[in-house]
Amino acid sequence: MSTDQLPTPAGGCAPASLHAEIQQFYARQMHLIEGAGADPEAWAETFTEDAVIELAGDTPDVGREAIRASVAAGVAHIAAQGWDFRHWFGMLDVRPRRDGSVRTRYYALAMATPRGGALDIRGSLVCHDELVRDGSGWLVRHRRLVPDGRPGS
Amino acid sequence: MSTDQLPTPAGGCAPASLHAEIQQFYARQMHLIEGAGADPEAWAETFTEDAVIELAGDTPDVGREAIRASVAAGVAHIAAQGWDFRHWFGMLDVRPRRDGSVRTRYYALAMATPRGGALDIRGSLVCHDELVRDGSGWLVRHRRLVPDGRPGS
Amino acid sequence: MSTDQLPTPAGGCAPASLHAEIQQFYARQMHLIEGAGADPEAWAETFTEDAVIELAGDTPDVGREAIRASVAAGVAHIAAQGWDFRHWFGMLDVRPRRDGSVRTRYYALAMATPRGGALDIRGSLVCHDELVRDGSGWLVRHRRLVPDGRPGS
Repeated sequence: MSTDQLPTPAGGCAPASLHAEIQQFYARQMHLIEGAGADPEAWAETFTEDAVIELAGDTPDVGREAIRASVAAGVAHIAAQGWDFRHWFGMLDVRPRRDGSVRTRYYALAMATPRGGALDIRGSLVCHDELVRDGSGWLVRHRRLVPDGRPGS
Repeated sequence: MSTDQLPTPAGGCAPASLHAEIQQFYARQMHLIEGAGADPEAWAETFTEDAVIELAGDTPDVGREAIRASVAAGVAHIAAQGWDFRHWFGMLDVRPRRDGSVRTRYYALAMATPRGGALDIRGSLVCHDELVRDGSGWLVRHRRLVPDGRPGS
Repeated sequence: MSTDQLPTPAGGCAPASLHAEIQQFYARQMHLIEGAGADPEAWAETFTEDAVIELAGDTPDVGREAIRASVAAGVAHIAAQGWDFRHWFGMLDVRPRRDGSVRTRYYALAMATPRGGALDIRGSLVCHDELVRDGSGWLVRHRRLVPDGRPGS
């Protein structure tokens, strides 16, 4: 781990207040692109203006507008299929840094249920975020998604 | 969101103490209806006397006695099949309200493993609870379960 | 529950600080045996010298060296298959005890994704740990794993 991490309780883990904030940030963020009320605009607002999303092997989305456009296309595709789509995050590790930003690592499951059909768990990913404070909340500055099973992963 | 929410840290999210309490409440509550020690009586006691469980599309269970009878039937069915049944909750969002109650939203996975057989993840739900304080713990006053993939969801 | 549990808030549940520490301990511990950087040595160091891992029906691993050897064999097997293997923990209950140790119960999902293949969720387990403080962190002194669907479970 890098040298610019804050000393924190329990071997460098995040204090409970920060851990709880990040968990709830993720629960709300991911819900923004799920279901009938999916809102790509509001989702994009959970990223910094200059944020980057990297999906291993793909061209990154650079900047809030590219992130919005990319997720809007995904949301439209899901709606057209009539799926209920869910993102589950788990096994969250939170590491605060000296500059006030936070690095996280977590696992994600992507799952879809078609109307009248059975749940399909599409795949598992390992995710790495850099988060920065925004008032009383957080924004994602960088997200790197590494799907399990990729030849290069 | 309604106007009777308390102002809380990090954009209206629950403080860590509350978030940890609710997570543990759910872990204990759901374990009460799983496995050889399943106890529908104790499960019913985690709801208020006038509690309601709504499963989208079904007739609601109204009152603790209806909730007990309904889950007792489910537990008996699972035992007769010889399944190990688990409920996983995740992506928990907790919103405290001015009156001391709490609104939560979370995702649930229902899964069963038959004796000698393979795990079957039955389905995914989005759940909405209203919780009220009961001494040092919590009780559910209202639970609304919306299974993914329902024609009406 | 035994009489040597500490009185804690919310009906005997762990305070938020402890709950957050244990969650992060597990996230880091399990990541140590996953992926290209899997490190059975570092994994073994998250157990006490005299730790025991019991998998229902199998001969227990007794002592840190047996635990290391056992997980090293598992890691080598997974690497030979070319799988991305993940352990998800959820529904965590944490009970602090008067002697400073902690008892936990949690559910686990074991999942593997072959290169170029689909996610396979292998099975569900109920896990019971005894943890002891080690400086600012934690060590596992005893882990009991009960796979769902076992004839004897």
